[in-house]
Order: sequence, then C-alpha cells, then structure tokens
Amino acid sequence: MNNDNKAKYAFGMVGLGTMGRNLLLNMADNGFAVTGYDKSEKMLQFFEEEGKKHDLKGFADIEQFVGSLQSPRTIILLVPAGAIVDSVILELQPLLAKGDIIIDSGNSHFTDTSRRYLELKEKGIHFFGMGISGGEEGARFGPSMMPGGDKEAYAVVKDMLEAVSAKVNGDPCVTYIGAGASGHFVKMTHNGIEYAIMQLLAEAYDIMKNGLGYDNNQIQQVFEKWNNGRLKSFLMEITKDVFLVKDDKTDAFLIDVIKDEAKSKGTGKWTSQVAMDVEMPIPTIDAAVTTRNLSKLKNLRVELNEAFGETEKIKADADFIEDLEEAFYFAMANAYAQGMHLLWKASIDFEYGLNMAEIAKIWRGGCIIRAEFLEDIYQAYQKQPDLQHLFSDKNVQAKIKKSLKGTRNVVTSGINAGLGIPCFTAALTYFDTLKTGRMASNLTQAQRDFFGAHTFERIDSEGIFHADWNKNL
Amino acid sequence: MNNDNKAKYAFGMVGLGTMGRNLLLNMADNGFAVTGYDKSEKMLQFFEEEGKKHDLKGFADIEQFVGSLQSPRTIILLVPAGAIVDSVILELQPLLAKGDIIIDSGNSHFTDTSRRYLELKEKGIHFFGMGISGGEEGARFGPSMMPGGDKEAYAVVKDMLEAVSAKVNGDPCVTYIGAGASGHFVKMTHNGIEYAIMQLLAEAYDIMKNGLGYDNNQIQQVFEKWNNGRLKSFLMEITKDVFLVKDDKTDAFLIDVIKDEAKSKGTGKWTSQVAMDVEMPIPTIDAAVTTRNLSKLKNLRVELNEAFGETEKIKADADFIEDLEEAFYFAMANAYAQGMHLLWKASIDFEYGLNMAEIAKIWRGGCIIRAEFLEDIYQAYQKQPDLQHLFSDKNVQAKIKKSLKGTRNVVTSGINAGLGIPCFTAALTYFDTLKTGRMASNLTQAQRDFFGAHTFERIDSEGIFHADWNKNL
Repeated sequence: MNNDNKAKYAFGMVGLGTMGRNLLLNMADNGFAVTGYDKSEKMLQFFEEEGKKHDLKGFADIEQFVGSLQSPRTIILLVPAGAIVDSVILELQPLLAKGDIIIDSGNSHFTDTSRRYLELKEKGIHFFGMGISGGEEGARFGPSMMPGGDKEAYAVVKDMLEAVSAKVNGDPCVTYIGAGASGHFVKMTHNGIEYAIMQLLAEAYDIMKNGLGYDNNQIQQVFEKWNNGRLKSFLMEITKDVFLVKDDKTDAFLIDVIKDEAKSKGTGKWTSQVAMDVEMPIPTIDAAVTTRNLSKLKNLRVELNEAFGETEKIKADADFIEDLEEAFYFAMANAYAQGMHLLWKASIDFEYGLNMAEIAKIWRGGCIIRAEFLEDIYQAYQKQPDLQHLFSDKNVQAKIKKSLKGTRNVVTSGINAGLGIPCFTAALTYFDTLKTGRMASNLTQAQRDFFGAHTFERIDSEGIFHADWNKNL
Repeated sequence: MNNDNKAKYAFGMVGLGTMGRNLLLNMADNGFAVTGYDKSEKMLQFFEEEGKKHDLKGFADIEQFVGSLQSPRTIILLVPAGAIVDSVILELQPLLAKGDIIIDSGNSHFTDTSRRYLELKEKGIHFFGMGISGGEEGARFGPSMMPGGDKEAYAVVKDMLEAVSAKVNGDPCVTYIGAGASGHFVKMTHNGIEYAIMQLLAEAYDIMKNGLGYDNNQIQQVFEKWNNGRLKSFLMEITKDVFLVKDDKTDAFLIDVIKDEAKSKGTGKWTSQVAMDVEMPIPTIDAAVTTRNLSKLKNLRVELNEAFGETEKIKADADFIEDLEEAFYFAMANAYAQGMHLLWKASIDFEYGLNMAEIAKIWRGGCIIRAEFLEDIYQAYQKQPDLQHLFSDKNVQAKIKKSLKGTRNVVTSGINAGLGIPCFTAALTYFDTLKTGRMASNLTQAQRDFFGAHTFERIDSEGIFHADWNKNL
C-alpha cells in the first residue's frame, strides 16, 4: 500500500482506552494530525466529536487506518500487554512497508519486546518498546516517556514525543533510551522504584499511626511538610492529599475504610525477578513486592495477630519526626540507587547503551517517581557517566552519612515496637552490607566446598581451591 | 525392543559423574542389579573394577544399555540440568516402550520438568523429576530423595528408592511427592531454605566476629554448643567443623583466607522468583539470594567501606549469646515456615497434591537442611494436614513467642553497630508484618486509585470502588 492523497496523518494509534485517547488528544493539542483505529460505535463517536476541535480521525477498518498514514507510517499501540500486542502486530504487518515504525507503549515484559523487535527487524519494520509513566493525567497533559529501539528511526518520532512530553525547566521528559528492549526495561525498573517508594510511604504512615498514635490530620501535616522539603515528589504530594479526603458514605476519612490488601500488576515483580537473573541486589524493591503479597494474606494475618498480640507504642523523643524524615530520605535514596544500579548492569549485559544521566533527567517530570531527589541523581551521573553506584557520588555520600543516625533510630524503634517495616529495614541492611569491605561470605563458600565440593577462592593467591574439610575430624 | 535373555538389570543410570557413580554404588550395595551408560574409557574401567564386587555393568552403546534393562525399563538421569537432559531424552526415546520410566535426578527447573512430563506422557513414558539432596556423601550412603510424577509408576521404583535413601528412626527419607513436576519444585524449595540457613550462619558468624570480637576458637565453641541443642542440624555441624580446619599453606585458620564472594547455581534464585509468581512472601530466602549477589560486588564494597567507615562493636551483656541462639532459632523457623508456605500454595496452584507432613519427614535425614527443627514441622503438619502456615501451630507459636525478646535485641544491636544482617532482619520484619491484623496497605490502594484509577475495596461493604481524590483540592 503506497501513500496516496488520503495519507495525510502523521501518527496512528491502536488501543483507545483512557491512556490511548488521552495521548491522542495530547498529540492533537500539540498540532499533530493523528488517527485512531477502533471498531466500537462509542469510539467512532469520540472521534467525530473531538475531530471537530482537532485534526484527528477514527477508522473502524484497519486498511483504511493504515492507508491514512504518511510514510514512514508510525503506529503507536496502547493495548494491554501480552498476547494482544502480538495479535495486533500480526494484523498490521501485511499492511506495512519497510521503514515503518510500530511503538508498543504498554507495560510489556522486556523479553517480549526483545523478541518482537527481532521478529520485526527481519521484515524491515522498526519496533520501539516505549514505557509511558504519568497515569491518565500524564498521558493527557505530559507524560515521561522511555522509547527504546533503532536509533535512526527515533528521528521520525522525536519532535512529536518531545512536544507531548512533560517538561522540566524547559527540557522534555523523553529521550532516546537505547537499543532493543531498553525502553521497556527502564520503564519496568521505574515501576520497581515506584513500588519501593509507595511501600516506604505506607511504612511511614504505619509508624506515625501505630507507633506514635498520630491521627490522620497529624499524619497529613507531616507528609505536607515533607513535600515542602527535599522529599518533595509526586507520590508524597498525592499521599498528603489522600489524608484530606472524606468518605461520602460515612463522613470518616476515606483512608480508614479502605481494605489493607494491596494489588499489583506485575511490573514490580518483574524488576525483582530480572535483578536476580542479572545478579544485582535490589532488596528494597524486593521487600516492597513481597510486602504487597503479605498484605494479601489478610485472614492469616488476623489469626496470627490474635496469637501473637498487638504492637507497642514507640518511645519517641521530640526529634523523632525529624529522624523519620532522615530515614525516609535514606531509604528512598537506597531505592533509587538500587534501580539505577540495576540499569547500569542491564546496560552492560544486554548492550543497551543507556545514558544514565538522561534517564534520571527524563524521570524528573511527568512520571510517577518524579522527585526532587532525581536532580541529585542527574547531577551525579552527569559528573560521572560511568558511575556504577549512586553512593559513590560525594554529594550523595554526604547526605547519606547525615541521615544514618536518624535512620538507625527509626528502624530500631520500629523493630522494638513490633511494627512491620520491611522496606525501611531492607534499605538499611542493604546499605550496611554494601559498605562491608569483608563480608562473612567466606563461610558460605567454605560450607559449599564442604558439602558439595564447589571449591573456593583465596584472598592471598589466584586460582580455584578445594579443601579436605574432614581431615581433622 | 523387547526383553530378552540379556535384560537382567533392574535399573540404568545415565550420567556417571560423582553423584551418578555414588548413587549407582549405593544401589548395588543394596543388592540391586544396575547398569550405566557412558562412552569414556575411564568409566568403563570403573565398571570393570566395581563389577567384580557388585552386580553392575557399564555400556558404551546406548542400545545395548537399554537392552540390558528389565521391563518396564527404569532409567535414572544424573546429568547437568538444562539442554543436556533434553538431548539424553531424545536419544533414549526411540529405544523405549510404553510404560518405561525416566527419572531426572538433576536440579532441573520445575517448568522444564513439567514440559518433559507432558511430552513423554503423550508417548506413554512415565517421567519423574526427582530432587536428590545430601551431596556426594548422601548419594553414596543415603540421600533424601523427592520423586514426583505418575503415582502408579512409583510402585516400580519404591523399594529401590527406600533401600538406598537415608533413614531416620527406621523411616526412609524418600516418599512419593506428588503429581507432575512436584519433585523438582520441592527440591528447589529445599534449596531456597538451604540458602537462608547458610546466610543466617554467616550472619551469626559476622555478629560474633565483628560485633563481639570473638576469635575463631570462641566462634567454633558457640556453634558446637548450638549443635548440641535444639539448633542441631547438618549445616550447624559442618559449620562448627569449618572453624577447626587449618590452612596447609599458612597454618592460619582456612576460613580466614577464603575470599568473601559467595557463588550460586540458581536454585535459590528460582525459589524467590517462583514465589513472586505465586504471590507467596518468602523474604528470608529472598534476602539470602540477594546477599550472595551483594557479596559478588567486592570492589564496590571495599570502596564504600572506605567512604562510610567501619562497624562498631556491640555493647553486649552476659546473655547476648543466649539471645543470639534465640534469634537463630527464630530466623531459622521463619525460613522453614516460608518454604513450607510456598509449598502449600504451589500444591494448590499446580495441583501437586503434596503431603506436607511427609515432606518434612523425608527432610529429617540425608539432605542438606536436615535439622532437629524438622521434627516440630513434621508434628505440626501431621496434626493438621491442611495447615496453611507453620506459625498457626500452637507448639511452634509458644517457642516463637519465647524467642522474640532475644531476637529483637540481636537485630537492633546488629543494626546499631552497622552490621549487615539482612537475613535475620528479613525474618523479623516478615514475622512482624505477618502478625499485623491491619496493615498500612490501605494507603497503597488509595495511591493506586489516585494516580491510576486502579480502584479499591472497603472494609465495611463488598464491591469495587473508585474515588475522586481531587475533589477537595
């Protein structure tokens, strides 16, 4: 199918749920002629109405839809991750020509993206995996976007993506991420960090509510104060707002009638699973994933609560809330540092060619984990583009050092009170292990050699050794 | 190929490394006529020599090997997990008849076993995934074995497996585990628990060495004392022995010259990854997997050690070592409880039909995680076969309650000294979260509904709800 007079649209969208519609309108707002493909009556009505205001059009016929696009055709998918992505690609493929571009903007697993990238590359079609963060609001008015794929094809979409993205100090929150499936890998890691920050907020709430006996107003004030300082972030901002909302039905605070079972869609889990595959420790993220699973065991929890009894109050001094702020800063920094460390390793293992500073830069706006702290991360990687770990940065080191005393006080106070604060605790034990010059893992190797003849290395000479551990017995 | 006069052997073995040879000799010791398949000269020599003492024979020709077996032919594979298992099956398949049995005794991933089970079922061949634990010594003189597959075919191998297995109070450490890939799933979980116990031993060593300033002799005495009490176990036993061994080269203790980088072969990682898939929290095992990965970051650790400084000594009172014993008991119980909880869920999700008491029973001897404590686990599941979680058992509850004070003291002391004790800590925060009747996860659901319209449930009425979180803003 060649371009003809009808081929007037610059971009096409498949999948017109809330995210797809909002991104489409965002593109139209920015002056791009866009078209959508959908079969439902309701969707065609949407296009008819919005088409009066913007340069956009909807098609119920896929051939007409593809035919309406300028060459190289650029088609964005915003359909649920999984088999649907494959079936849409299968439907589109015979209608596309060499050089055309498909951009999967859902939360696909990066291994699926990698497979699709290679399959479509054989056919001369450029495939981008592009993570989008920012929720429905972000899609409509400026998300953070993480596109990975063929660099030469990025030129075709660059202007449009930069136009629709969020901006921080005028800089767009989108950049070419890297090769292959890197876009989805980076988005997945973003979500892993998001899980950790959300769990830290839940634990801070738990400490204030059950450890200190604060009411919702007091808790709201603490989160609000924090959001006016270095902890300022999107998640802190909505958390302080959550505590303002009353329930329509009971006039109680809505937070108090919400069930304490956290759901999940899998991207946090993927982050932890992949990190184990590439042997990168990200225990603060792991703890967040695991704690969501713990929350789902409601009946068991209630039973064991009766068996083992309630928590105690924390014996807090006047500075405790300041310590809690230090602990939050510390644990949050660990969550970001672990995510960045994972990206550093993935970039090597999967040859993504990631620019770590650019990733921190585009996360500063539009996305769910946008935060003041990303400015420090950005600066650190700008100074040292090949930095393995954020905690090697002198600026971050100084702030981490300052936060340690308060962090240890909060964690040990929480533990002594019997509060479940796995994410704060995992951050601190991660840090303490990571700063251990000589770990006790020599014992692990000795044991492995003892029962399985798995051998060991020595600190005083090169090589692989095996000992007769029974010789003295 | 039908039975003929040559078909006099009861069992065949493919894969004659140390494990395979030792298991073969174990079978021969117990009066079973066994044959092995191997092409190397060295291996045929082994058979010539051992064949003088035992009823066993080696073949370099696979047709002769298969032809030497009685019907139904039972062939045990002890080859490296992965593609080799598939290639051996492919080689054997044309020579086998309906009703024959293949037993994969390597550490295969249970999803591979599941696939092979279904492929061979179509051809009428019974496939068993059988985990074996106990190392080389175990294989030779009595391992713990976990066979899963078709129950009717188990009758063919039952007597032999029971004869060669370890015994506890006369009970064999082998039982029919369950359907499909259950044997390898249970072995994988066994290894996950093993990772956790090994890491707890490393952390106890770290606490004594760096927190208390103990020398190797003092540390050895503590482990020896523990091994004479309720912490008695195979891993405790070899750990105390490790500290006795001197280096041939330097006359120092060997433990002190071993490099602190712990390797791993993947089964612990698989346990954590699968647990996340089936949404079961096993954070004590996760922490052990992650800490091995932390140990591999030696250069980074040394650098950050210089930046952040050394740990402090623990201000220990006279009872501290008793508290440490309590903490070890507590954390160890958490590791086993998490593993059993995972098995309980896998049995439901994968329809394995596991008998939890039987699993605890066969782990009491022969395997790497054999321990006094397994008697308590066995009793708990014998009393309540459908017990979801070990901590619902009154006997275990009483012991856990008693260990809490010491555990909190050890964990907070370690944290205040700056020691990295992620596995002890993960056990305690897991426990504290699991006994929380109302978690703070209502906030997580509120946030998810706020930024992603993911909805929430209420505690006061059924249904799925969504709120306008911006209404007061």
